[in-house]
Amino acid sequence: MPKNQKTKYSSASAAISEKIRLVEDFPEKGVVFEDLTPVLADADTFHTVVRALSEACQELGADVIGGLDARGFLLGSAVAYDLGLGILAIRKKGKLPPPVHSEEYNLEYGSAALEIPANQWDLTGQRVVLVDDVLATGGTLVAATRLLENIGAKVTGYVVVLEVDGLGGREALDGAPLVVINQDK
Amino acid sequence: MPKNQKTKYSSASAAISEKIRLVEDFPEKGVVFEDLTPVLADADTFHTVVRALSEACQELGADVIGGLDARGFLLGSAVAYDLGLGILAIRKKGKLPPPVHSEEYNLEYGSAALEIPANQWDLTGQRVVLVDDVLATGGTLVAATRLLENIGAKVTGYVVVLEVDGLGGREALDGAPLVVINQDK
Repeated sequence: MPKNQKTKYSSASAAISEKIRLVEDFPEKGVVFEDLTPVLADADTFHTVVRALSEACQELGADVIGGLDARGFLLGSAVAYDLGLGILAIRKKGKLPPPVHSEEYNLEYGSAALEIPANQWDLTGQRVVLVDDVLATGGTLVAATRLLENIGAKVTGYVVVLEVDGLGGREALDGAPLVVINQDK
Repeated sequence: MPKNQKTKYSSASAAISEKIRLVEDFPEKGVVFEDLTPVLADADTFHTVVRALSEACQELGADVIGGLDARGFLLGSAVAYDLGLGILAIRKKGKLPPPVHSEEYNLEYGSAALEIPANQWDLTGQRVVLVDDVLATGGTLVAATRLLENIGAKVTGYVVVLEVDGLGGREALDGAPLVVINQDK
């Protein structure tokens, strides 16, 4: 779809609110889960959201888009294509063959890790903007940042569709700018 | 990146062979794992591969692109955006809040399931082309097909980057055309 394609939505927030699936008490009581699946499956809302993400990534000076496994892939891939960039897939532990660079992070119970290949490419000096669907605690974005900066890349910003308030995510991402596409909060 | 942007590669196969990471004896002895991560992270090879996938999806008559969790998301999202369509994310079990449509499939040991939301949208009559990175046994693509056809959608084709010979995937996908982008086998 051309960048200047007209959609019926005046903003990404309008597109999101039209199609988002809100599910109460998931994954636990008192939490409202914001499921973007129908937003992405509709051509018009998907296009509107990707364009808003792309504009933010461009302003943040991306050489490559970093997408977080798995929902970040659904957004980062289209954003990268739209901007004429590549998509750097940051995988959950165990998905990639060795050798890998790995970075652990803490979960509520236990820990997890993010990984990228450790050979056949060089990300030194590359400016990466990380794209994901929802900013909650920021744990995965912080771990992805450490992973990339350990190998000489530079994370120049974070772009997400939605932000969950009160979980400290915004405060955790103190090293680079954060853009939240949905402004109807 | 505009559709008519020139890349230095004459074909998707040339782009893939330039950047693919081949890892011997993973996940088990005797298997060569084909890691596309560096192909996707390079703007030029990513663009070349996405354009080849997009052209195939267009010929197969897609109303919406179906992407399989998680590596299919990295390709399907850009393809959908390129064609002005939406991306239908077909998730692994347990990732989506209820209600969901679910379809089980067998693994070497045990079983798994694919899921999509079951409310707030209607896929009846939609023509879906399924996009994934690698065709091996075809188990997930077959399960995704059942999942979508059970709710009235029509899978009009399969488009993948790579095919692993000898695992029966091509034979399993007997209901609709298959396009493999990498022709240098």
